[in-house]
Amino acid sequence: MRDRVGLVLVHHPTLDREGRVVTSAVTPLDVHDLARLARTYGLDGLYVATPLEAQRALVRRVLAHWTEGYGGQVNPCRREALERVRLCRDLAEAADAAEGRWGASPWIVATSARGGTGRIGFAEARSRLAALRAPALVVFGTGWGLAGEVLDACDAVLEPVRGAGPYNHLSVRSAAAIVVDRLFGREGGETAEEAFSKGS
Amino acid sequence: MRDRVGLVLVHHPTLDREGRVVTSAVTPLDVHDLARLARTYGLDGLYVATPLEAQRALVRRVLAHWTEGYGGQVNPCRREALERVRLCRDLAEAADAAEGRWGASPWIVATSARGGTGRIGFAEARSRLAALRAPALVVFGTGWGLAGEVLDACDAVLEPVRGAGPYNHLSVRSAAAIVVDRLFGREGGETAEEAFSKGS
Repeated sequence: MRDRVGLVLVHHPTLDREGRVVTSAVTPLDVHDLARLARTYGLDGLYVATPLEAQRALVRRVLAHWTEGYGGQVNPCRREALERVRLCRDLAEAADAAEGRWGASPWIVATSARGGTGRIGFAEARSRLAALRAPALVVFGTGWGLAGEVLDACDAVLEPVRGAGPYNHLSVRSAAAIVVDRLFGREGGETAEEAFSKGS
Repeated sequence: MRDRVGLVLVHHPTLDREGRVVTSAVTPLDVHDLARLARTYGLDGLYVATPLEAQRALVRRVLAHWTEGYGGQVNPCRREALERVRLCRDLAEAADAAEGRWGASPWIVATSARGGTGRIGFAEARSRLAALRAPALVVFGTGWGLAGEVLDACDAVLEPVRGAGPYNHLSVRSAAAIVVDRLFGREGGETAEEAFSKGS
């Protein structure tokens, strides 16, 4: 199942600090971190979505260095991760690409640091993903998060990652790592039950 | 308990791609991500360890921008995280600082992407941390990981974060997020049992 799951890193429409809808700039390190994460957890890969052609061109240049250029020669692990990065204009284009690849329209689950009505828990998302025959996309927003219209367009929205209290300002790199580990982690090592029911 | 736990980001002695012992350069984004992570999970904060004074000066400048300068004014959440960053020369100095703060020498657990003998599982580490009266440090290596001498100097080494197979090349930012979530996560939200025994 997990090999048909893509991560999507959305740069528009996202929110800025004041809640305005903006286009975030691509942070190349996000692309590296999320591609390595997807590869480590056996997912299909990462879609980087931005409507700005200049930004897609920047990412293409970074990818070429690591997949065809010197970076890939000296660091084949990085190449293996970055080979699974695809560029697209927006979430709809990522969904079309997933449908084209797998012959079925994907189940799309968004992530958000904000609570709200109708959020689904990690347990439920994990079950739904495990039972899914269709491909799936797990969507992350840059900047201050996905705009409401993106959340509305998804099939489900995950509850926020909570730490110890109301403070909740993880980077998208940290949040994505935690979400992917909660949804797809631990099959290779000790089981979830071992890791948590004993330890908590 | 968690409020006496510090993360330590070590830049020396670490390994390079070929297993040589080196001093890694500080990546400012690592400092941001791990400080925000520590704050979100209610930990004591982050120690950034490097023997190079020029590197510590760089981090001091970044911190000043976010804690005293313009960054902190426009982004108080970031300030709240970066206020809990401390600079030190090495792990020993971080341990001394923790002992000075809490009056007891810390239990020090290292992380590693490599397996090896005597690694402890996340469940065991979680139990030990929960039962601990002393402070604790969770140690992360930059570059290609902590040198053997650092692992040897710690009280325990955690088993690697595993994904879906042998590929295991997470960034230190991603690995730290997953480790902290596995050790300290979920108390505010659904319980570990809810999250995993239902879902897996």
